[in-house]
Amino acid sequence: MTEIIGILGGGQLGRMLSVAAAQLGIKTHIYEPAANPPAQDVAAKVFTAAYDNNEALKEFANSVDVITYEFENIPAKTLEILEKITPVLPEKIALATSQDRAVEKRFLQKLGLSVAPFAEVNSLKDLNAAFAAFGTSAILKTRRFGYDGKGQVKITAPGQTEDAFISLNGAPAILEGFVDFEREISVIAARNKHGKVSCFDPGENIHRDGILYSTTVPANLSHTMETDAILLAARILNALDYVGVMGVELFVTKGGLVVNEIAPRVHNSGHWTQDACLIDQFQQHIRAICGWPLGDGMRHSNATMVNLIGEDVSHLNKNDGTGIHLYGKKDIKPGRKMGHYNRISPKTA
Amino acid sequence: MTEIIGILGGGQLGRMLSVAAAQLGIKTHIYEPAANPPAQDVAAKVFTAAYDNNEALKEFANSVDVITYEFENIPAKTLEILEKITPVLPEKIALATSQDRAVEKRFLQKLGLSVAPFAEVNSLKDLNAAFAAFGTSAILKTRRFGYDGKGQVKITAPGQTEDAFISLNGAPAILEGFVDFEREISVIAARNKHGKVSCFDPGENIHRDGILYSTTVPANLSHTMETDAILLAARILNALDYVGVMGVELFVTKGGLVVNEIAPRVHNSGHWTQDACLIDQFQQHIRAICGWPLGDGMRHSNATMVNLIGEDVSHLNKNDGTGIHLYGKKDIKPGRKMGHYNRISPKTA
Repeated sequence: MTEIIGILGGGQLGRMLSVAAAQLGIKTHIYEPAANPPAQDVAAKVFTAAYDNNEALKEFANSVDVITYEFENIPAKTLEILEKITPVLPEKIALATSQDRAVEKRFLQKLGLSVAPFAEVNSLKDLNAAFAAFGTSAILKTRRFGYDGKGQVKITAPGQTEDAFISLNGAPAILEGFVDFEREISVIAARNKHGKVSCFDPGENIHRDGILYSTTVPANLSHTMETDAILLAARILNALDYVGVMGVELFVTKGGLVVNEIAPRVHNSGHWTQDACLIDQFQQHIRAICGWPLGDGMRHSNATMVNLIGEDVSHLNKNDGTGIHLYGKKDIKPGRKMGHYNRISPKTA
Repeated sequence: MTEIIGILGGGQLGRMLSVAAAQLGIKTHIYEPAANPPAQDVAAKVFTAAYDNNEALKEFANSVDVITYEFENIPAKTLEILEKITPVLPEKIALATSQDRAVEKRFLQKLGLSVAPFAEVNSLKDLNAAFAAFGTSAILKTRRFGYDGKGQVKITAPGQTEDAFISLNGAPAILEGFVDFEREISVIAARNKHGKVSCFDPGENIHRDGILYSTTVPANLSHTMETDAILLAARILNALDYVGVMGVELFVTKGGLVVNEIAPRVHNSGHWTQDACLIDQFQQHIRAICGWPLGDGMRHSNATMVNLIGEDVSHLNKNDGTGIHLYGKKDIKPGRKMGHYNRISPKTA
């Protein structure tokens, strides 16, 4: 029986995973290089150490029954050390796949899923050739370590390729063509070690400045497309023999669903589940990695989640009838996720 | 602005208050004499010290912005020391009233509310006289420190009074007549410092062996009686100039509502709010004591809460579609509250 879960990363996702674990009677230990992480207020123990501190990693691994993570950029060596002592879930194949945009897209294509047109870029020559082939504007993205729009440059004319390439600082990249989409949705899917998959209803996402602004459920989707989205998510989780919760971002296009990206962890676009589902994405993830049966993703309400980014949190209306979730971060910075709120209404579909 | 809340008592109510505070971005410090209390896994700091340890009390009070409690039997001297340093909410009048069954009943009578017939018992002579006056079976209850059926003896014949009196060990008591009730309900009510009152819908309680077994919402009540219950609860909170959440237990009788008892804290019969309301009783209490606006008690679903007592927790069905709440207690003991679960269904009324 799992009594203590180790979590790599002490940000808001680690914090909300800790709370979910506590609700299920389970303690958490947090491993985080930065001091005073948001998760520390609700964790039984915090390890403050770098991801290459082998002694600290071993002590951490020995102190817990299972290890999970709140972000995907965990160094391969860190994982290797931890895994020798304690199981890490989701397993490293999911991390290896999602850490690299090129690997991820090839994996998805192999499953028969559509992705945005892309080309690998290892030189300016690659970039010029790819841009010429797309024949229109495109986005240059580093293959690794990108999130919330970081590591991305938009290119709209051939003359911009050189500056864009230099901005990469030599990082391997891809050039990604634009997808003509009607809307973006995401499916929060869970799978346990017995292969049982459970999905929450797809949510419709709105981004601002490359950062998720809101998610609304139900998404404006045909029944067929909703089913497609769920089957497609399940195919991805099954292919990775995945254990835990995954966020699958999809573009809705005239030609069907195109996979934007996958995140092998609880996901910002699943925060609506906290107030609109009996078992939310955080509890679902804890259930999966602890070998509990999964919940069925049952939703009792419609919901809209809105992120509180930077100064948004100073203008939060606490009298607005919404479910408020704050991350306990002291310093307000532009672009920093400070919290979110969920507005719910009676379920319509 | 409240950044840190101090909580007296580290049991499951303290634990769930800590989680609610964390959801609202607020830290908690727990003060608890016993080692390894359930709340410690989700608190920023734990003070392990006795309630008469003045130094520890002062250090605790100085470390927080406001103090609250998860149980009502806090020594008056403890409160006195804390209050000089940091506000304690709900204020001591509520504690003084609810700590003593005789004081509580007289307070309720003064408000024009019905209570069970009772007589103070300070001697065997008092007891015999009271039992003769009631003329039927009755319950001898210590005035202070009773919970979950503790400190209570049923008397069904005059010959039992002497043994019952001896069992008190000299503690002041009351003899309470039985109330012929159809059902028992409770109202979880909140009030903030501006005098705004908000109540959750009344829940219907079932007890087993003197311990709450389940609470179901909506209760089987006429609309008039539901309104009566809410108005009556508001009258109690207003009379005490109360700030925080209170549990008000009521008997439903042919002649109307009779107040059983009040608890100046979050209450077991309000645990259903965790999964059937956007803002639950724990968040509501945190909001009240931190000076936030109250939520409106909005309920999105019907619910039944079932306590997991002692070995119940070993037989918990994790695959049952319920919202599970475990308290992280290691040792299972008969009568010990180990957790609870909530089953929800679409709202009908």
